[in-house]
Amino acid sequence: MEFITGLKQQEEAELEDLLKAEEGTTIILEGAVHSIRDMGEIAFVILRKREGLIQTVWEEGKTDMELSEIREGDYIHVTGQIKDEERAPHGKEVRLSTIRHLSHVSCPLPLPIDKWKLNTSLEAKLDRRSLSLRNIRERARFRIQEGIVRGFRDFLYEQGFTEIHTPKIGAKSAEGGANMFRLSYFHRPAVLQQSPQLYKQMMVGVFDRVFETGPVFRAEKHNTRRHLNEYTSLDFEMGYIHSFLDICAMETGFLQYTMNLLEKEYSKELKLLNITLPDVEKIPYVRFDEAKRLVSEKYNRKIRNPFDLEPEEEELIGKYFKEEYNADFVFVTHYPSKKRPFYAMDDPEDTRYTLSFDLLYHGLEITTGGQRIHDLSMLEEKIQEKGMTEEGLEQYLDAFRFGMPPHGGLGIGLERLTMQLLGEDNVREACLFPRDMSRLEP
Amino acid sequence: MEFITGLKQQEEAELEDLLKAEEGTTIILEGAVHSIRDMGEIAFVILRKREGLIQTVWEEGKTDMELSEIREGDYIHVTGQIKDEERAPHGKEVRLSTIRHLSHVSCPLPLPIDKWKLNTSLEAKLDRRSLSLRNIRERARFRIQEGIVRGFRDFLYEQGFTEIHTPKIGAKSAEGGANMFRLSYFHRPAVLQQSPQLYKQMMVGVFDRVFETGPVFRAEKHNTRRHLNEYTSLDFEMGYIHSFLDICAMETGFLQYTMNLLEKEYSKELKLLNITLPDVEKIPYVRFDEAKRLVSEKYNRKIRNPFDLEPEEEELIGKYFKEEYNADFVFVTHYPSKKRPFYAMDDPEDTRYTLSFDLLYHGLEITTGGQRIHDLSMLEEKIQEKGMTEEGLEQYLDAFRFGMPPHGGLGIGLERLTMQLLGEDNVREACLFPRDMSRLEP
Repeated sequence: MEFITGLKQQEEAELEDLLKAEEGTTIILEGAVHSIRDMGEIAFVILRKREGLIQTVWEEGKTDMELSEIREGDYIHVTGQIKDEERAPHGKEVRLSTIRHLSHVSCPLPLPIDKWKLNTSLEAKLDRRSLSLRNIRERARFRIQEGIVRGFRDFLYEQGFTEIHTPKIGAKSAEGGANMFRLSYFHRPAVLQQSPQLYKQMMVGVFDRVFETGPVFRAEKHNTRRHLNEYTSLDFEMGYIHSFLDICAMETGFLQYTMNLLEKEYSKELKLLNITLPDVEKIPYVRFDEAKRLVSEKYNRKIRNPFDLEPEEEELIGKYFKEEYNADFVFVTHYPSKKRPFYAMDDPEDTRYTLSFDLLYHGLEITTGGQRIHDLSMLEEKIQEKGMTEEGLEQYLDAFRFGMPPHGGLGIGLERLTMQLLGEDNVREACLFPRDMSRLEP
Repeated sequence: MEFITGLKQQEEAELEDLLKAEEGTTIILEGAVHSIRDMGEIAFVILRKREGLIQTVWEEGKTDMELSEIREGDYIHVTGQIKDEERAPHGKEVRLSTIRHLSHVSCPLPLPIDKWKLNTSLEAKLDRRSLSLRNIRERARFRIQEGIVRGFRDFLYEQGFTEIHTPKIGAKSAEGGANMFRLSYFHRPAVLQQSPQLYKQMMVGVFDRVFETGPVFRAEKHNTRRHLNEYTSLDFEMGYIHSFLDICAMETGFLQYTMNLLEKEYSKELKLLNITLPDVEKIPYVRFDEAKRLVSEKYNRKIRNPFDLEPEEEELIGKYFKEEYNADFVFVTHYPSKKRPFYAMDDPEDTRYTLSFDLLYHGLEITTGGQRIHDLSMLEEKIQEKGMTEEGLEQYLDAFRFGMPPHGGLGIGLERLTMQLLGEDNVREACLFPRDMSRLEP
């Protein structure tokens, strides 16, 4: 009988092996032909690997394959000798002796992915997603995105949170309303979850602190630069809080942890994209009504509706706190009860407002969170007040019936946070395969 | 202006603080009243916290609240003095001086969650999910599940994989067929993804190695102990492989890494559940046809269909390899082409079979994987052979048009892997909120 015993050392070098190896060493590499610069008797054949680009040099009479046989987009296996060369990326190049094809491209590439900046419209990039992301700056964005999710999870593991996986198909969803995708589930009406809200609250009674990173679905008829109809939500919920400010503190801790992680582990990508990380040492917080007043005064803007925040007002709040406090983020607290779902805890000092908050990053909402109601009768009252029915909420209410600690939590839109960190102005730039009102493919 | 500066030291102790503190220290605790044992002048009030149970002692005349005011299920804030007591969990108890309520339970708990074994039917446990999981052995299962997902990600990060997030709503899905949930997406027909297969392959051309952990949806009309209609899939896909055995090696590496992680970080839960981790040092592999022959001979079972594997045959293969090699896992390789999707690479030596595999764990399939076709014309041919159309696959095929390395990957059913590790006989025991043909709630 034969056995698999785990990973074995591979013959082919990765970028880090190349960097460690000495001049003169023979090396085996595999990669995609990212670009070819033909100089006559020699040619630079740039290989693309997951960790970056490697300069290899084809030499007439020394390399065993004709240059004309290689095309941009081919995948090849090569051997060659390492030579120090300060003009090459990483200061090293590989003089090729042999080339063998792993696969052949079928046609010339329709996008210039080897350019530093892929000057292509967003639409064209999204239509050719499997090609446009081969540009090393385009793909670097999603490495940064990985770092954000990783930071979220690792920080919360450290803080005693348990990761959960909750169903996306359900009989009922957290927010209700018209913004739900509906489907038939074995002949029963079902919806896609707008948020794991009800599930994560139920799990606070079990694990005290929980988080989930997963897709959420919003059938919103908004076609803006800020909206996606399916996005990745970073959610947590925690028990035994004293105030909704404990949630803000946990989010600030996450941001601090994550910026550190990005700096340490994703510096290559930050450099490629020329990103300066935001300052998250301290984040100001301001009441909703106060924030409205501040920007209305400073920017001479009339308050049209005291209980609503328009996108332009959000932008101005961002501007205000950047100008006055050099702050990249600001917590806007005490949102009006009318604008918050039934599970939000009202401020006992003024029940027109809630103990909840949004986090704005450069004037864009990236998080909604707050303290939740943990008392059964208060919750039942609120459900009635909002004109809702308890139907379908029985098992959610059970959690409160059998005891719940004071708790709260939040949901962070991963693509929005990534977009703001990257300084992009369309959230689709921060999503591998965006879903919007007109885009269902690829 | 006020600022949030991150996490602050909390006043209330966690279990680890209690363990570190000396006898006589005054401590503040918050927790759920898990059980009350009234002994007359004293009573044991067991608090449930995320890290375990803590024994506190109510004493007549010394504790500032009447015992009758506390009920199982209440959440309380207490202060007390630590006393060494070898009969208490962790060898310490807390003699209570003050008790204050954080919240009140509304009724007696309908399930005896403080029992060591919750002797309740699976149906009842699922119907009362937010309560049944408060049993510490019930919840421990999902801590183990967390460890598995964490091991998967951490191992793959180390191996140079990039984490991706792909859409769950699409125009087309990987496997096609009747097993798709259908919905209307802004008046266009759409489906829920059965697997991230097509997306992760597209991303191999970008990142070389990718993984995703997320929900997948299968509208299969199976109501068995092994099937869920929504489950969490651990998927990876990697380029530059030499053989499908490289995928098996990567999976073995993941299992080795994860068993180590569980042993180190989840030992408390393993002990609670009395789990012995499986041996994953080496995993045998055997051809599909050979495996069928072996069990047919040993267990005197006629081979009815040489191109299909029945669930009982899978169980017997598990039994065979346990008996003959003391193996908990076995890779069954070279599945018939008819049984594999269009993207599977046929074995060039016998195209009736593919370069693919399933991993069985104690006789249950927990993984399907293999080498994929990376050549455009071979893929187009296969699509035709299978009687499919290229419609909706244009952007998937683009990835191959513009060059792809030899590659392969796999998908692991998280709940099935958890179920086998726990030694459970129903996959619903390993899912927080299972979705099956009859269950859409909670």
